[in-house]
Amino acid sequence: MEFLITRDDLNRALTRVQGIVEKRSTTPILSSVLIQARPEGIRMVATDKAMTFLGDFAANVRVPGEVAVDAANFFQIAKVLPPDVVTVKLGDNLRVEVKCGSSSFKLNGFAAAEFPVTPPLDQSRVLTIASAELRRVIDQTLFAVAPEDNRYGLNGAHVEDIPGEDHLVRFVSTDGNRLCWSQAPYQGELGIGRKMLLPRKALSEIRRLLDGYEGAAEIAFGERAALFRVPGVMLHLRLLEADFPDYRQVLPSGFKRRVVLERDQLQESLRRVSIFATDGAHSVRFAFSGDGLVLTARKLDAGDSREELPADLTGEPITMGFNARFFLDVLGVLQGPRVVAELGDTLSPCLLRDPDDERSLFVIMPVRLD
Amino acid sequence: MEFLITRDDLNRALTRVQGIVEKRSTTPILSSVLIQARPEGIRMVATDKAMTFLGDFAANVRVPGEVAVDAANFFQIAKVLPPDVVTVKLGDNLRVEVKCGSSSFKLNGFAAAEFPVTPPLDQSRVLTIASAELRRVIDQTLFAVAPEDNRYGLNGAHVEDIPGEDHLVRFVSTDGNRLCWSQAPYQGELGIGRKMLLPRKALSEIRRLLDGYEGAAEIAFGERAALFRVPGVMLHLRLLEADFPDYRQVLPSGFKRRVVLERDQLQESLRRVSIFATDGAHSVRFAFSGDGLVLTARKLDAGDSREELPADLTGEPITMGFNARFFLDVLGVLQGPRVVAELGDTLSPCLLRDPDDERSLFVIMPVRLD
Repeated sequence: MEFLITRDDLNRALTRVQGIVEKRSTTPILSSVLIQARPEGIRMVATDKAMTFLGDFAANVRVPGEVAVDAANFFQIAKVLPPDVVTVKLGDNLRVEVKCGSSSFKLNGFAAAEFPVTPPLDQSRVLTIASAELRRVIDQTLFAVAPEDNRYGLNGAHVEDIPGEDHLVRFVSTDGNRLCWSQAPYQGELGIGRKMLLPRKALSEIRRLLDGYEGAAEIAFGERAALFRVPGVMLHLRLLEADFPDYRQVLPSGFKRRVVLERDQLQESLRRVSIFATDGAHSVRFAFSGDGLVLTARKLDAGDSREELPADLTGEPITMGFNARFFLDVLGVLQGPRVVAELGDTLSPCLLRDPDDERSLFVIMPVRLD
Repeated sequence: MEFLITRDDLNRALTRVQGIVEKRSTTPILSSVLIQARPEGIRMVATDKAMTFLGDFAANVRVPGEVAVDAANFFQIAKVLPPDVVTVKLGDNLRVEVKCGSSSFKLNGFAAAEFPVTPPLDQSRVLTIASAELRRVIDQTLFAVAPEDNRYGLNGAHVEDIPGEDHLVRFVSTDGNRLCWSQAPYQGELGIGRKMLLPRKALSEIRRLLDGYEGAAEIAFGERAALFRVPGVMLHLRLLEADFPDYRQVLPSGFKRRVVLERDQLQESLRRVSIFATDGAHSVRFAFSGDGLVLTARKLDAGDSREELPADLTGEPITMGFNARFFLDVLGVLQGPRVVAELGDTLSPCLLRDPDDERSLFVIMPVRLD
């Protein structure tokens, strides 16, 4: 194996694989990237077993071949090489020689055959979605995916076809205290697996691959895995084998009070007042009345914070407690200038949405005030 | 106490005190900043006992007075306030009210009398030094001050008047494996204390205060403390009560070999090759010969790195080992395009300096190669 690649292209390629490989795996091969040099260019493959990245990159391949090499070591080198053409060559004893200007490195490689094989996936049913829409849907649901809950179903975003409506896909996530719901149009066919739960790390990785990309993305769902594809990149994802809760029970069916607020203003006030919301639940007191909204928080031994802002309330005044971070997470992923909160009683869930955008909605459970 | 100050001025003032206050002190008053409002402006005082910062800032003082308040809490608030005028007022029960636009905070304060008193210092003998020179001298010595050595004398930079030469001050630091030596001209009088050892944290803080400042700085050395002063800021520093070693023994008196290198080139090559110098001593093999310098390193289980660069050697070829970081630290604080290494035998100390600048020199002990 031997190929030439510019330092910058090599860096771009290795940056892509860094998110996938396990940094401190006890199985060294899982910390490595498989490099496949073919006449048309190089393919880099990295896997953490749950997810496999396959990326094609331009390179001047002199001798086709393949080898695996520690991804972190290779990346560390690539980052500091002079801005020149890099020669990568498989030498004796699986030693990978990397040369650039007056620099040369020899990396210990692994036989390509040791690298885990990516299971094949039925790609007969593929959906196509605009990258801006998929970005939005992931941004609007990823933050509420539980990080490591032992209710395994909460560790992913649930994907579903919307019953009765053609060609709309919905992502739903919840960590038990809040719920996110976001949908987007697609073309093609949503090949429903048994349980379409995309794990947190897979969502983050897809989101990363969509950064700065404006074309269409493809997803093919199989029984236990899905394949995400943008030009030059494939991501093979194992789906979560768990049950997502019946989220429809949580959605409020009506409301007693409705408040319209300016999103930026609420965001800034809430950020400030929540500096003193340092209890576990980041509790902030929301007092809605005809005069507007007063936010207050208290940090023991430190002091109090207070913010006043205009709010357009329909219904009786009410005082409720909310986790400031949950509110801020939602405000950060809405796109319009206004936000609507639909409220019941003091301990009823609060529904948040953009009054001019039907594509997403958010439910936040209140916290009990002392 | 009551004063008005712009959000930005308040932030600037509080940024200054953050480096001094102890973040997690068991004595709450040491985590606080003392605010003294006087008709001419406000003074902020912060201390960690070893060091006291006194800074004067412009403010519109309505009611003079003083109070201490938790510095981290106050800073956290100041950072997020809207860009407007902030009113700071001492209310009942030592509550400090901070108002800005629609935001208001109440911080629990401490009585000013609880704040530790800064001991007075004899300021009759003061030396004046150009800030660019003092910055250079600190940059060229601080990195070799031992972080926390139980040989206490190594935990500071030794300051001395140069015998036989008027108005040159020299800073010397060592951690036992390397030595830095840097001198600068001054005006005024160097009021020699018994032992002039400036602690590491004091040096960092002085360096921070010199950032972006181009005027002259003043230092008054007393018996056990020193006072550093730039316009609007005083820093009271307790000197280290320990003995600095007799560093002159370490300075090589002659050399057998002399090598001239391009500083940038050596820096870049060394950075690259040292990626694989991951043993405790960051060992890199330096092979000097008539053909130039070859740098090599080996990381167990990962691979080898190699760099070639031109070097102008006078004397016999030699191969030595050095800690790459020690070399890089020195290369980073030299200012000219070239660097000279004066070498003895394989295990003799190496003297590094700029061939065109007599103001500083550096000694690095080699490491034993396997």
